[in-house]
Amino acid sequence: MIGVFDSGIGGLTVYQALRRALPSDQRLIYLGDTARVPYGTKGDATVIRYAVEGAAFLRRRGVRMLVVACNTMSAVALPSLAGAVPGPVLGVIEPGVEAACRATRGGAIGVIGTSATIKSGAYPAAIVRRLPGARVLDRACPLFVPLAEEGWTDNAVARAAAAEYLSDLPERGLDTLVLGCTHYPLLRDVIAATVGPSVALVDSAEETARVARGLLDRPDGAARGGAEADHFYVTDSSERFREVGARFLGRPLERLELVDLAQ
Amino acid sequence: MIGVFDSGIGGLTVYQALRRALPSDQRLIYLGDTARVPYGTKGDATVIRYAVEGAAFLRRRGVRMLVVACNTMSAVALPSLAGAVPGPVLGVIEPGVEAACRATRGGAIGVIGTSATIKSGAYPAAIVRRLPGARVLDRACPLFVPLAEEGWTDNAVARAAAAEYLSDLPERGLDTLVLGCTHYPLLRDVIAATVGPSVALVDSAEETARVARGLLDRPDGAARGGAEADHFYVTDSSERFREVGARFLGRPLERLELVDLAQ
Repeated sequence: MIGVFDSGIGGLTVYQALRRALPSDQRLIYLGDTARVPYGTKGDATVIRYAVEGAAFLRRRGVRMLVVACNTMSAVALPSLAGAVPGPVLGVIEPGVEAACRATRGGAIGVIGTSATIKSGAYPAAIVRRLPGARVLDRACPLFVPLAEEGWTDNAVARAAAAEYLSDLPERGLDTLVLGCTHYPLLRDVIAATVGPSVALVDSAEETARVARGLLDRPDGAARGGAEADHFYVTDSSERFREVGARFLGRPLERLELVDLAQ
Repeated sequence: MIGVFDSGIGGLTVYQALRRALPSDQRLIYLGDTARVPYGTKGDATVIRYAVEGAAFLRRRGVRMLVVACNTMSAVALPSLAGAVPGPVLGVIEPGVEAACRATRGGAIGVIGTSATIKSGAYPAAIVRRLPGARVLDRACPLFVPLAEEGWTDNAVARAAAAEYLSDLPERGLDTLVLGCTHYPLLRDVIAATVGPSVALVDSAEETARVARGLLDRPDGAARGGAEADHFYVTDSSERFREVGARFLGRPLERLELVDLAQ
């Protein structure tokens, strides 16, 4: 069984990509820590503590492979999650960096994400490891998460926020921009219109699903778990998650359950 | 000693009003549950659980009077906090409603707040109790909290968000608008410009401080606590709170400490 773990609802973009990439009898279980969302504006020690608690919960539910479907957690807490489940632990940053380094023509790569992700420096470090000499410009865009959660993905507010954060990027010569937060693909059209057609956008969800599929074929890959429906767990009341989640996935969430991570 | 309790940083507007209204030897201690902020997008059971934990922490620190400096917590959790400290427990909603009912000329009152506050219906219920026949229009404005925290209180994004939420209010005949979230006074100028001069804005912080001052003179009022500096507690790393808090208060926060509410 594969666990997909996010601070809230954004990781559903990764869940969706996994669902499309993996065999239909591969069970996924999703955990959104909606009682404590967002992680991206919080400090490292707090994010690490929440990540370890969530991973322990998923392990107790039988998860063998863990996909950390949250850039903030991947940037800050991945080393602390080594060994948290019996199989591999996969973040979204390395797959996103791989894709960006393949996409760039001139080696000028932008990264946008939450305050915590950007402050961690995880993206520039990983990009330069893979593509020495790359020029990286990274920038926090904290308003994009609440905009996506509000469903304001293509109105005047979203356009004004994108202009405030991104309008100087084209003149800086970037050719590739990594959407370094799982919420940001929802704002993809507004972001694309702001930075223009000369900048390729990279969404790490697809790439992460491809890597997860490769890992499944290894001997320590997750057991499939049979034909049962995927299970979604949240830590805050499920009503809002059910509503926003159905909008994210384009279908209702069948099995949705409120849990307490301490138990 | 008086405890001032908010989910994060917004309650500092109430702290500031209390500091101005109360004698200088009246000690205040502030708790911001920044590791789990925001409360306003979360469900009732979660908000109540967090409120009870925070109040218990403040009681252990010697608080006798508790000011719940958060509209969401006041709307959802106030009954659950009765008896949480030895003295009175005061929310921000009743004082704000008092002020609005004094300010209105025609009895048409608007209320804006977080999703949780608006969903609770606490404001319309309290207004109609005090002013039967009042007409109340309430509306959630979820983006205003992240805008205030980002420091975007008077730019194109703030103006677009205010227009999206509020531009129809003047034609609906309102004469009074309650800023039903402790963050919103930071966006006061943009809100005022959007709704126009015919609508009076009510900020409950000042009114709450006045009520607290009255309660202090009662026999069960909080002991003053001497000339020690006020103490600020947060549950997430203090760096961001220190920075944004200094901006809120216009002075540095001297005694700021990271705590775990479970301890």
